[in-house]
Amino acid sequence: MAVYLDHSATTYLDEAVFSKMEPYFTRKFGNASTPYAYGREADRAVMEAREKTAAALCASASEIYFTSGGTESDNWAIKGAAEAAGKGHIITSSVEHHAVLDTCRYLEAKGFEVTYLPVDAKGMVSAQSVRDALRPDTILITVMFANNEVGTVMPVAEIGAIAREKGILFHTDAVQAVGHCSIDVGAMGIDMLSLSAHKFYGPKGVGALYIRNGVKIAKFMHGGAQEKDSRAGTTNTPGIVGLGAAIELAADTMDAENAHEAALAARLKEGLLKIPYTKLNGHETSRLPGNVNITFEGIEGEALMTYLDLEGIAVSTGSACTSGSIHPSHVLMAMGLSPEDARGAVRFTLGRENTEEQIDEVIQKTSDIAAKIREVSPLFAQRKGGIKRV
Amino acid sequence: MAVYLDHSATTYLDEAVFSKMEPYFTRKFGNASTPYAYGREADRAVMEAREKTAAALCASASEIYFTSGGTESDNWAIKGAAEAAGKGHIITSSVEHHAVLDTCRYLEAKGFEVTYLPVDAKGMVSAQSVRDALRPDTILITVMFANNEVGTVMPVAEIGAIAREKGILFHTDAVQAVGHCSIDVGAMGIDMLSLSAHKFYGPKGVGALYIRNGVKIAKFMHGGAQEKDSRAGTTNTPGIVGLGAAIELAADTMDAENAHEAALAARLKEGLLKIPYTKLNGHETSRLPGNVNITFEGIEGEALMTYLDLEGIAVSTGSACTSGSIHPSHVLMAMGLSPEDARGAVRFTLGRENTEEQIDEVIQKTSDIAAKIREVSPLFAQRKGGIKRV
Repeated sequence: MAVYLDHSATTYLDEAVFSKMEPYFTRKFGNASTPYAYGREADRAVMEAREKTAAALCASASEIYFTSGGTESDNWAIKGAAEAAGKGHIITSSVEHHAVLDTCRYLEAKGFEVTYLPVDAKGMVSAQSVRDALRPDTILITVMFANNEVGTVMPVAEIGAIAREKGILFHTDAVQAVGHCSIDVGAMGIDMLSLSAHKFYGPKGVGALYIRNGVKIAKFMHGGAQEKDSRAGTTNTPGIVGLGAAIELAADTMDAENAHEAALAARLKEGLLKIPYTKLNGHETSRLPGNVNITFEGIEGEALMTYLDLEGIAVSTGSACTSGSIHPSHVLMAMGLSPEDARGAVRFTLGRENTEEQIDEVIQKTSDIAAKIREVSPLFAQRKGGIKRV
Repeated sequence: MAVYLDHSATTYLDEAVFSKMEPYFTRKFGNASTPYAYGREADRAVMEAREKTAAALCASASEIYFTSGGTESDNWAIKGAAEAAGKGHIITSSVEHHAVLDTCRYLEAKGFEVTYLPVDAKGMVSAQSVRDALRPDTILITVMFANNEVGTVMPVAEIGAIAREKGILFHTDAVQAVGHCSIDVGAMGIDMLSLSAHKFYGPKGVGALYIRNGVKIAKFMHGGAQEKDSRAGTTNTPGIVGLGAAIELAADTMDAENAHEAALAARLKEGLLKIPYTKLNGHETSRLPGNVNITFEGIEGEALMTYLDLEGIAVSTGSACTSGSIHPSHVLMAMGLSPEDARGAVRFTLGRENTEEQIDEVIQKTSDIAAKIREVSPLFAQRKGGIKRV
């Protein structure tokens, strides 16, 4: 049985969403920037998607800027804020996605100063640590809404309140949160928010950046006057229509989907934790409902993933964006795991079409494979014998 | 009869191309960066598209980097080259697309020096002017392959030869050329080339940057390790599959399509130039086959476009990316047209589905509308009377 348990890496495009996109590929194909009928038809569809996207975030349509995805949104928000300020200090966390972390490191090389906040053993950033890191020259706080590896949901509203109190820009990478967490950018004090359609059953290659009205950041993409002269490039009408349809659907079905995923996640977690020498990574409650991240002691997560793949089961070790990296997860290391425990972690992320039957099969197969690997693992023999590998 | 004559703004997605993309939306949806079966299937499709794209440019697959479109490719190439060099002088032309021009202006504000080469009355950049503009600190030449407004095809191979002789990077924005012009990046001395799928019956939201092996430019999009750790962001598999299928189709059908477009363009040009006080803008021979750009003296191009739209005929004034701008076209102004003549220009760009019947109707309708507008135009009365408006 093929079982897909890597919904945090990407999701399939919803069939109903695809149906709404389809006319804009071949028939309603006009360039949305053109003033004649073909263009107006496309522009109307884009405006409708903008309104749906805004509604899902409790924002205004004029605050939504479409991009090519979460990575572009993160790059634009952070580099745009930095360039608008010219210099200064940025606060982020040590468990951000690389789209944020690498952008911050790039800015460090350009003379900006960056504080990478630590997290606790559950992967949580504390709002107090944000407050403590503030400096007179702090220009931006960028802390993710929910972590992509362990699913920990951050205290975004608390951080937003601090940012607002101090008058500092607050950006959040909500790529993993949209469709799972209720988001109200105003109530949460969020100035900028990144999202990506393919994480909530929308198409790949399209995302958005929410920028609160009044916030001024520099352009990232120079050229044509698209997106209120803020983001150049021919409007990706079918992609944007898909994003709008998917985010509307995600908002409408969020409660039911979360309940479904949470029930399956509980079943999966319970089953996997019965395997000896396993432990859950991440927070018990402040967590994305469909995320189960487990360390299998004495096992390389890569090996477990590979054997599960042979059974048709798709899971991941950390982020798809760093797949193939030999380094243990920066997220798990920041949480204080040993390199061995970090390398032994496997992420299972659930979705709407997963079933109890699938979960039971995954538990059984994982248990069998873990046992087989451990039989031949000197690493595990050491661990069982109480000898810690250095 | 609905007639679409704005193929340089965007094209419809080819039905056969769409069929090839379709499985990658809903069924073969894996993240191409993941190592399990879903991901490998996506990765194989992306590699195939990379090979097709390389073949169309006489390049190697390892030299193709997928992006979100022509604007991103232009931004990356130019900013990436500038950042890698740190400082220096850039040569470009005064008739580039805004994705190049605005990027160059941005770099000027950052301390780079830019020479904007003039063009002749036909919109042509001379290779000699590139040579004359060279300085010891020149780091980049960026001259477009073919102009998007008047269709003039530039002496790219000559410029490439100069760049190679002097050891200076040469980038060309070939967004309008791919599918219409034979391109051999090696023979033409091109180091970097931008292209966009939606200009040759591929999907919107996806493009590519060719970067010759050995050329080092800075990253533009920071984050995950996609595209050989050079361009972060989840791989847009369906879009890339579409780009690959479209560019292969464009290469296979180029001669026939060009002949079809050229025949229709000749018919359209002949018919429109019979309307009194009209003239062709751009080059007679070194020109994209489907481009007909005509100035109607004493008429605002916007007005003509609007009336044609009411008849179901889609044409444009200049670039879709600057639509709505009150400024006359920077391209036509650089060619030495008066502001009045620049404002009187209308661009007709032909495509594969246009017919002789459509062309004859467009000639007739344009002629009727031009006559009606002129009847009530004080501007035209002045012009006919030989009085030049200042």
